Amino acid sequence: MSDEVRLIYWPVLQGRGEPIRLLLEDAGIPYVDAARAPEGGFDLILQYRSGDVEGFLPYAPPILEHGTLRIAQTANITMYLAERFDLLPEGEHVPWQLNQLMLTVMDVFAEAHDTHHPVSTALYYEDQKAEAITAATAFVRQRLPLFVRYFERVLERSGGPFVLGADCTYVDLALFQLAEGLAFAFPKGFAAQDRPRWAALVEAVRSRENVAAYLASERRLPFNEHGIFRAYPELDVEPVAND
Amino acid sequence: MSDEVRLIYWPVLQGRGEPIRLLLEDAGIPYVDAARAPEGGFDLILQYRSGDVEGFLPYAPPILEHGTLRIAQTANITMYLAERFDLLPEGEHVPWQLNQLMLTVMDVFAEAHDTHHPVSTALYYEDQKAEAITAATAFVRQRLPLFVRYFERVLERSGGPFVLGADCTYVDLALFQLAEGLAFAFPKGFAAQDRPRWAALVEAVRSRENVAAYLASERRLPFNEHGIFRAYPELDVEPVAND
Repeated sequence: MSDEVRLIYWPVLQGRGEPIRLLLEDAGIPYVDAARAPEGGFDLILQYRSGDVEGFLPYAPPILEHGTLRIAQTANITMYLAERFDLLPEGEHVPWQLNQLMLTVMDVFAEAHDTHHPVSTALYYEDQKAEAITAATAFVRQRLPLFVRYFERVLERSGGPFVLGADCTYVDLALFQLAEGLAFAFPKGFAAQDRPRWAALVEAVRSRENVAAYLASERRLPFNEHGIFRAYPELDVEPVAND
Repeated sequence: MSDEVRLIYWPVLQGRGEPIRLLLEDAGIPYVDAARAPEGGFDLILQYRSGDVEGFLPYAPPILEHGTLRIAQTANITMYLAERFDLLPEGEHVPWQLNQLMLTVMDVFAEAHDTHHPVSTALYYEDQKAEAITAATAFVRQRLPLFVRYFERVLERSGGPFVLGADCTYVDLALFQLAEGLAFAFPKGFAAQDRPRWAALVEAVRSRENVAAYLASERRLPFNEHGIFRAYPELDVEPVAND
């Protein structure tokens, strides 16, 4: 049984795998991005999805394998890795506080995704475009400001620059990714948000040595129209109504 | 600082609070359902949502307070309680396996919710009813069968009756709640699912002494049209197309 860290995630997109890649890269943990390796690809992922593997079953990628452990779900994987590789700041409540924040970050990922697939992920975008415009409008004007206000408050209370204060955690890396994704998908709507503390966090993450090296590497996939955050011009709605 | 366990959740619905209530009830852990107490109510919840409390901030209920700990997010709270009150079966990987499964159960809660609010939770049901019918149809015919097949496989692999085998865990309580909710919201669609193992799990949970006592008590709120699972007749779509 190998002690290699193996990440199994769609090879063509950042998606829900990217907070895990950022954690591994920032911490300098060697890992194999298995579906991007030559012998990987979509077939590898479909094996897991079809249940055609021994052992504990994931529902969907991202999946992490480490020794005899196999687990899925982004927030579960980041919590495990942070604990296992000793990446947590001191404090009895820290694991639970970070997991709470991470789950809220992932909720925003899901809401951002659902703007382009509001009716169902089982249907094409083209068949729900009108609803997507309505959904994107409600997201940018009503939902996003609530999340922004919340994260600003958390950062105000921690004293910044990160969610728990001085130490960068996996939640901060995920908030970096969320901001990059929202800026890609909703340039007008995200630029209009009042978020000085979150903006400072993003730049603090971006300038970390391992993060900067990762972002400049070929390992960092570009945003594209397969992922959670998609730059559909018709969904880049105005942040306030014109009428 | 009290060691009392305090749950803060909307006083009129089961929602994302119910997996926590079931865990506390099944384990016989004394707790205060704070927003349902006379001095609680919506005002208590709004205090937390507005950020008008000291200490670590939740984004939304459910919220758990225990000693100096305050945390939010259902799957985070159930994971914490299971660890803190020694409710986990033996096994190094068990906490992460259960958390994975729980997050997938909560994903189905979210998808079921989104059938009646597909375009946005910021808009009224009546203003998205046509989209809701399309969403419910895709959920019942395409999405739900995938989740059912997955949970059946997990139970087949564990040997049942529960997700990890002989011991009932908080994930099993949540799967009970999910089945009850789906049967309430989608009577036709859920009855058509091929799920012998999950059905057996539900009855095994229902007959547990503390669960049975809870379900028969006034502490168990009924399903209603405020919660995640809603019995809108127009969303109880046929599980297969008639044409």
